[in-house]
Amino acid sequence: MTTEIFNKQKTIDLRKQHIGPSCKVFFSHDPIKIMRARGQYMYNEKGERYLDCINNVAHVGHCHQEVVQAGAKQMELLNTNSRFLHDNLVQYAQRLQATLPEQLSVCYFTNSGSEANDLALRLARQYTGHKDIITLDNAYHGHVSSLIDISPYKFHQLGECEQNQHVHVAPSPDIYRGKYREDHADPATAYADDVKDIIEKAHAKRHKIAAFIAESLQSCGGQVIPPVGYFQKVAQHVRKAGGVFIADEVQVGFGRVGTHFWAFQLQGEDFIPDIVTMGKPIGNGHPVSCVVTTRAVAEAFMSSGMEYFNTFAGNPVSCAIGLAVLDVIEKEDLQGNALRVGRYLMDLLEKLKERHPLVGDIRGCGLFVGAELVKDRLKRTPATAEAQDVIYRLKDQRILLSADGPHRNVLKFKPPLCFSREDADLAVEKIDQILTDLENALGLPVSDHLNAQNKRKEPVEENGHGVPSGGSHHITKTNKRRRT
Amino acid sequence: MTTEIFNKQKTIDLRKQHIGPSCKVFFSHDPIKIMRARGQYMYNEKGERYLDCINNVAHVGHCHQEVVQAGAKQMELLNTNSRFLHDNLVQYAQRLQATLPEQLSVCYFTNSGSEANDLALRLARQYTGHKDIITLDNAYHGHVSSLIDISPYKFHQLGECEQNQHVHVAPSPDIYRGKYREDHADPATAYADDVKDIIEKAHAKRHKIAAFIAESLQSCGGQVIPPVGYFQKVAQHVRKAGGVFIADEVQVGFGRVGTHFWAFQLQGEDFIPDIVTMGKPIGNGHPVSCVVTTRAVAEAFMSSGMEYFNTFAGNPVSCAIGLAVLDVIEKEDLQGNALRVGRYLMDLLEKLKERHPLVGDIRGCGLFVGAELVKDRLKRTPATAEAQDVIYRLKDQRILLSADGPHRNVLKFKPPLCFSREDADLAVEKIDQILTDLENALGLPVSDHLNAQNKRKEPVEENGHGVPSGGSHHITKTNKRRRT
Repeated sequence: MTTEIFNKQKTIDLRKQHIGPSCKVFFSHDPIKIMRARGQYMYNEKGERYLDCINNVAHVGHCHQEVVQAGAKQMELLNTNSRFLHDNLVQYAQRLQATLPEQLSVCYFTNSGSEANDLALRLARQYTGHKDIITLDNAYHGHVSSLIDISPYKFHQLGECEQNQHVHVAPSPDIYRGKYREDHADPATAYADDVKDIIEKAHAKRHKIAAFIAESLQSCGGQVIPPVGYFQKVAQHVRKAGGVFIADEVQVGFGRVGTHFWAFQLQGEDFIPDIVTMGKPIGNGHPVSCVVTTRAVAEAFMSSGMEYFNTFAGNPVSCAIGLAVLDVIEKEDLQGNALRVGRYLMDLLEKLKERHPLVGDIRGCGLFVGAELVKDRLKRTPATAEAQDVIYRLKDQRILLSADGPHRNVLKFKPPLCFSREDADLAVEKIDQILTDLENALGLPVSDHLNAQNKRKEPVEENGHGVPSGGSHHITKTNKRRRT
Repeated sequence: MTTEIFNKQKTIDLRKQHIGPSCKVFFSHDPIKIMRARGQYMYNEKGERYLDCINNVAHVGHCHQEVVQAGAKQMELLNTNSRFLHDNLVQYAQRLQATLPEQLSVCYFTNSGSEANDLALRLARQYTGHKDIITLDNAYHGHVSSLIDISPYKFHQLGECEQNQHVHVAPSPDIYRGKYREDHADPATAYADDVKDIIEKAHAKRHKIAAFIAESLQSCGGQVIPPVGYFQKVAQHVRKAGGVFIADEVQVGFGRVGTHFWAFQLQGEDFIPDIVTMGKPIGNGHPVSCVVTTRAVAEAFMSSGMEYFNTFAGNPVSCAIGLAVLDVIEKEDLQGNALRVGRYLMDLLEKLKERHPLVGDIRGCGLFVGAELVKDRLKRTPATAEAQDVIYRLKDQRILLSADGPHRNVLKFKPPLCFSREDADLAVEKIDQILTDLENALGLPVSDHLNAQNKRKEPVEENGHGVPSGGSHHITKTNKRRRT
């Protein structure tokens, strides 16, 4: 058992004194002090266990022994920069490449998702000779200056929001709350046409498009799953304009979506981005990230004459850890687990939706799952305060969940991939109780009403009230768009 | 003994195939494959030992056991983000703060020098409400977009060099090769007045200065040591214009300069920057970096309403490693060693200068030392090819040194701080032989001539030819500006 250096209050006081006040803690009125973690569980200073439903960085489970040992072993041997040859670097690049379509063959290692996305922009601008970037509304791509500029999720937080003139914001392809919804005949084309319009308007102002960038599934943006075919159509428009397609897989890649290793693959085999960025999960907490692109983009970047050197990136320790993470995903079939447990979790949540008027939408792929809370299912009024309430009450029961999206009303599941059915049962059971309490307090309609609402909007379950006997066939039916 | 996964040629081939061609290796015609390292020594695939005179990241020595163990131990316990309370985070912030003037009390952790410098710019711009940055010629501050813009060392590499209109380049305060030299009555004031002129010109164009940024000693810029008093005068001008002073200590801080823990302290106790950035050495190779600033700047940054969150930064593992590095510096008196061995190395190099016409200038503080090679001491013609030759021939003798600066003619010493007198002896002995060979081949004048040249430019040694009997008093006399 590990012991505290300071008691909790002293830790809080020192943090106030010495850590930038812009760096927020979870649950600021009563933050959590975590001392150790293993798998999908974290333990506070009293040894109390929390179920971690949100840590998409501890991808193969907190403190996985194999990853820890690979890191420790390499730290003892060598940790230096990539200006020396090292087998770990090339082996890791080779292994990453093997997960991707063949033409995505050239890697640049970096230390964080932000460094990766910034480099992606530099690659795109150098390759195309263009400057403008199209990003999605509510997107988050990182914290460095160039990425704040393309992250409406961040720059909307600023009072005076002076948008960079080389950045264009396209509507988020959110078919629950966005511009074109699930009742639209072809939302993929409609959303892609909006990107086409943006390109035409930019051209009219003599601006030229360097890239379209999007998370393959919007994460901070509210667990948004773009309609299948959207990326293909966008890529067509963007490439016609001389730009490239950047798929940001920092939060959603590496097997999380269950059916595929990369989330962009959900769009179909005919879609291949020009640049893919990866980060968070790939080092299971160790600062490592990567940009992968085509030979053509890489050659153009080199032709600028500017060397790319990144002090820490691609060091033998980061690569050893990265390799171990890939090994564990494979050995423990974590992608398969994400698929199976993700489907199970979706089933449970769909059942919640049948009984709880606060639940407006359930969407997800693998262990990337969102439950959008609304005060009114027809108007889809965001239940922001209620979502916060759920999060806080879960915390009291030692379950860590978060709420995100532009209205902070989407409950987000993005747990370590070792998350189990029992974990899903526990989390959903608690959410069930909390929603019941909240709805009672709000005097919200009961489930009969729900059923009527469901009839209006969606194919209905045989028994809107009932608790189906498990399996996922009925979900697959009602929720096809989420299960590519 | 560690074994190769691939033979060296296969490693090279895979690197060509899978790593971006902009990522250069040292000695590209015959790169070095390093398998392990310890202290100031690195070992190739044949077990052959290289003396490392350049790795300023492996600050306390490659693979220092105490640092490795601290990292491994914490990796087993917990590695998560800073939204949870953790003692390592606050303790590390507290320890870093203790090395700095009291008003520099608020830390933001980041993963790389680039992330730190980018954040410094964001802090400065938010605090001042201004946009423009003054940087030094030949400066290098990092590889993300915002920093390429303020790094002439990088953007001069580009063919079409479209300089950002919000960036102003001041002359490098280099009193050997710069605009005002050692024969100038007051180079500190003269260089600072150039910054003042830049501010006035910017104001005339209605631009407003957010910050002046400089490495406390220019590293890639050619081991440049600004004259004492320069930073105070610049800070005065910049603050009068509503801007802040950012001291970039990423390469030069953490005890390297010997007399002080931070290189900006060489300017005198009356100088305190508004923002200090640190990186490379602080994790001994682990990706960690930090920005420290005043409460006032931190509060202004928070008042923007934008949270600062950095996924990996400030995690318990990075902080445990950072703490261990601080412990080792203290326990092993590495700052003291940098001072002592640095002075010894300077003595040896000054003696080389007495005998070798190719050596134009020797400058340094602690284990931050430069030897500038010139073809002609009066004209100070950069001996670029010769410097490259020295580096390559040293490599053949298994000594790793680099040449940098705008003309790539400055031999740079920046070894791990455990570098010893014996290491200095070995490196300088080999350089001595190589210079003799080069000068013979070039038919350069012998040492009598040298002595005459020395008389013209500098106070002369009692015996220009002789090899003084050690100690540093005679150096202190001739080289006062370098030994603050």
